[in-house]
Amino acid sequence: MNAAIIAVGTELLLGDIVNTDAQEVAQQLASIGINVHYQVTVGDNRQKLKRIMADYLTRCDVIITTGGLGPTSDDITKETICDIINIPLELHRPSLLRIEEYFKKSDRRATSNNIKQAMLPAGCTVFENDYGTAPGCAIRQDDQCIIMLPGPPRELVPMMKNKVIPYLKDFSGETIVSKNLRVFGIGESRNRG
Amino acid sequence: MNAAIIAVGTELLLGDIVNTDAQEVAQQLASIGINVHYQVTVGDNRQKLKRIMADYLTRCDVIITTGGLGPTSDDITKETICDIINIPLELHRPSLLRIEEYFKKSDRRATSNNIKQAMLPAGCTVFENDYGTAPGCAIRQDDQCIIMLPGPPRELVPMMKNKVIPYLKDFSGETIVSKNLRVFGIGESRNRG
Repeated sequence: MNAAIIAVGTELLLGDIVNTDAQEVAQQLASIGINVHYQVTVGDNRQKLKRIMADYLTRCDVIITTGGLGPTSDDITKETICDIINIPLELHRPSLLRIEEYFKKSDRRATSNNIKQAMLPAGCTVFENDYGTAPGCAIRQDDQCIIMLPGPPRELVPMMKNKVIPYLKDFSGETIVSKNLRVFGIGESRNRG
Repeated sequence: MNAAIIAVGTELLLGDIVNTDAQEVAQQLASIGINVHYQVTVGDNRQKLKRIMADYLTRCDVIITTGGLGPTSDDITKETICDIINIPLELHRPSLLRIEEYFKKSDRRATSNNIKQAMLPAGCTVFENDYGTAPGCAIRQDDQCIIMLPGPPRELVPMMKNKVIPYLKDFSGETIVSKNLRVFGIGESRNRG
């Protein structure tokens, strides 16, 4: 099973910050035997992100994006990916409640921008964010999955370790079973043909 | 003028080290007004590096690679790039002398592997390495250039600052003049047509 890590953020292209997320995700994927074949960084640019996603969707079993899940109009990861794979964004009420709770704790109110963070791909697996407002998520399509994670390391690191790795272990196990079944199926069919 | 930064190294894909080179190069390019559009990391794999290089050669004015200039057979950057752009590697005697001197200082001898580091693309601009054995280099083809830099930050950082940035300032200036001349030429021809 192989993977690509796609970082989304103009601040990385400008060299304002170093991409420690790529190292973190790569290390954790290596620990469960998933081979990272590529790491790519692209700016907050729909057209370029679309091109990169379309390219790596033809090459990798697992695509993990980091960043671009924030509340502003520059945060384009979910919208762009859903556009490519033709899945709508839907309001995820438990995430909205968590975001509202998060703001209440610090005596603030969630704005309509924060509600954007509770809009998630229809049918996705949601990874709750215990250290910020942007939930992560995974979309599975047959033997391939796309995982979107928030960029800030204090949010990404625990989400990757506690939620994404267990998810990927299951995904990886199921995919192996599914591939074996298909190979077995083809073999049977050939024997009968 | 836009750029892609291509890091070459399986150790990055495994998460063994963090890619601070990308940040360093990006910051310095930003400081002279060159826009980084993509950062990519690929392993020590000829086929994958070829694909990436071929892709970004169609998209970017400047391509800067980091890593893969070491003495071992895993270090494939120069060989792979020269293969794509059809330029031979030639022994660069001043670099060979510098490498031999480098080893003499620590009472060691350069091996045939180190001589590999003095093999450079024919006609390239050589960036001497003041802190290690691998020289960097730049290949210019019309309005495009490919720059290859060693991976270790203590070698890359001073080379980038002291040698590559002045080179790129010249390149950028000449390219603007050359593009203006061509635009002027086309205008003239149209007026006459």
